[in-house]
Amino acid sequence: MKKVINNAEQVVEEMLQGIVLAHPQYVKRVEGFNVLVRATSPVQGKVALVSGGGSGHEPSHGGYVGRGMLDGAVAGAVFTSPTPDQVYEAVKAVDGGKGVLLVIKNYTGDVMNFEMATEMAEADGIQVAKVVVNDDVAVENSTWTTGRRGIAGTVFVHKIAGAKAEQGADLAAVQKTAEKVIANLRSMGMALSPCTVPAAGKPSFTLAENEVEIGMGIHGEPGTHREAIRTADETAEHLLSKILSDMTLAAGNEVAVMINGLGGTPLMELYIVNRKVAALLAEKNIKTAKTYVGNYMTSLEMAGFSITVLKLDSELKELLLAPADTPAFVQF
Amino acid sequence: MKKVINNAEQVVEEMLQGIVLAHPQYVKRVEGFNVLVRATSPVQGKVALVSGGGSGHEPSHGGYVGRGMLDGAVAGAVFTSPTPDQVYEAVKAVDGGKGVLLVIKNYTGDVMNFEMATEMAEADGIQVAKVVVNDDVAVENSTWTTGRRGIAGTVFVHKIAGAKAEQGADLAAVQKTAEKVIANLRSMGMALSPCTVPAAGKPSFTLAENEVEIGMGIHGEPGTHREAIRTADETAEHLLSKILSDMTLAAGNEVAVMINGLGGTPLMELYIVNRKVAALLAEKNIKTAKTYVGNYMTSLEMAGFSITVLKLDSELKELLLAPADTPAFVQF
Repeated sequence: MKKVINNAEQVVEEMLQGIVLAHPQYVKRVEGFNVLVRATSPVQGKVALVSGGGSGHEPSHGGYVGRGMLDGAVAGAVFTSPTPDQVYEAVKAVDGGKGVLLVIKNYTGDVMNFEMATEMAEADGIQVAKVVVNDDVAVENSTWTTGRRGIAGTVFVHKIAGAKAEQGADLAAVQKTAEKVIANLRSMGMALSPCTVPAAGKPSFTLAENEVEIGMGIHGEPGTHREAIRTADETAEHLLSKILSDMTLAAGNEVAVMINGLGGTPLMELYIVNRKVAALLAEKNIKTAKTYVGNYMTSLEMAGFSITVLKLDSELKELLLAPADTPAFVQF
Repeated sequence: MKKVINNAEQVVEEMLQGIVLAHPQYVKRVEGFNVLVRATSPVQGKVALVSGGGSGHEPSHGGYVGRGMLDGAVAGAVFTSPTPDQVYEAVKAVDGGKGVLLVIKNYTGDVMNFEMATEMAEADGIQVAKVVVNDDVAVENSTWTTGRRGIAGTVFVHKIAGAKAEQGADLAAVQKTAEKVIANLRSMGMALSPCTVPAAGKPSFTLAENEVEIGMGIHGEPGTHREAIRTADETAEHLLSKILSDMTLAAGNEVAVMINGLGGTPLMELYIVNRKVAALLAEKNIKTAKTYVGNYMTSLEMAGFSITVLKLDSELKELLLAPADTPAFVQF
């Protein structure tokens, strides 16, 4: 294992320290917990958003803490759900009196632990609502998941629900908007190479020299199948067709697109994928309101990418394009 | 070679198409050339900035075309200088009547080709000035370079000179500010793994299982030495000490810091590096005005990172913190 680390057991702690030292204008640490909240938290009179999950997906989720997106992010061990007490501390730290929305990626451990935290916070009189993101169309059920997995599309939930909260909407309205995003959100990915969890010290799976895995999850969970690597265009077309066959999109509809790198993929390759995705959408007369290309939801140094399509209506479009100011997502 | 591409000979062309399709609000293509310019180019009455170089360093340089940074970016073949005619087309496309500043990384081919383009543009009556960035303290002279190499610190030149131009400064003043940035800019990097140029099909060098190269350039040019991988803290301390020993920094001085990933390094590791860099600067009572952590100047999928330190005065600080709105660098 060749990594720029000091100690495999300390990577999350040291990363969190590094984030706070880099971005004190955006985030602060909840003392004693693996929780980052806005430097200005709690923001009084605003619904707060908390997300999180295992570490190793950076900039998710700490990179999205800031104006217009999250109020708090909880960091579990690498690829491991955060414990309920950590989530509970995040909720307490960000509640500004209007309640807290939890944005949970659909993994059994995350769902369970965020729910336990909800009960703890409600016992304190804090209003808590939750949404579960399940955008990955690759497989139903999977390692650690009942139903579909939550992957890169989660960032659109942060962005849009975060903008709704910033506008002053109440908890029920922010939750309803987040649920609308989830209902219109589909993603699918593929991997060219595995990654190594520091504490494990070796790759969690292997792929042959010329082999890729289609539909692989962001922790290396199995996808639909393995195959010999095809061209970027063929792969993009395959993933996009799986995504679109699960959505109701008509000519003239408007979408947002994310081409997400898993951590070890050159930006050059993501743009080559986008070239094909944009052409395929244009052929169908589907209009792309905005495209995001980059490393938004990673799997450490895994090579590969995912495509996310979000069907927009006027509300979702306005909220998506609203300003945001966070360490990893800034938009005028 | 396992890459998400269609054809090794077409990667730059297809990437440029993908960038324009992703970001039409920011950039457009100069028809028939590997040149991206602002969607609003030429901007009348403003000094224009053009940078570029070999491809494979994305988001450098096309990702920095937009308000507050570059007006144009020229993309050579992967790790290959753009030809003079390409640079010349960029200059013509962006000149808004106040002249054009070329920001060149110090590689012999780049310097020569940008200079030939300068002569061509001047023959047309366009005012052209240039600066050469040589921030890499690792080695004097190197493959393709006389003097020091230009690496990630170049992004600070784009940012600060771009803000100066946006304020309405004339060409001589923008050039002077860019030269001040370069005089106060130092970087150094290291690599854990090589990358593969698509047209070559195999890695440009090899490192043993436990070996890293200190001071390696962004095209895999040799650094100062190879060694067994050490801890993140030891490596950060070594690079930072080389950087600081080449600068005049006193307690109370203010700097900007960039922890730059080379393309295949998890953000987690970059933040672990930042933790140590921030601690070492704080020990010396050097104040960090802003820290940037991410993939700013990459080498395809190479694993590794560089550290950049820029000594600030009040002018440089104000310009660094000024707004920018580009595909890959957005700041309020």
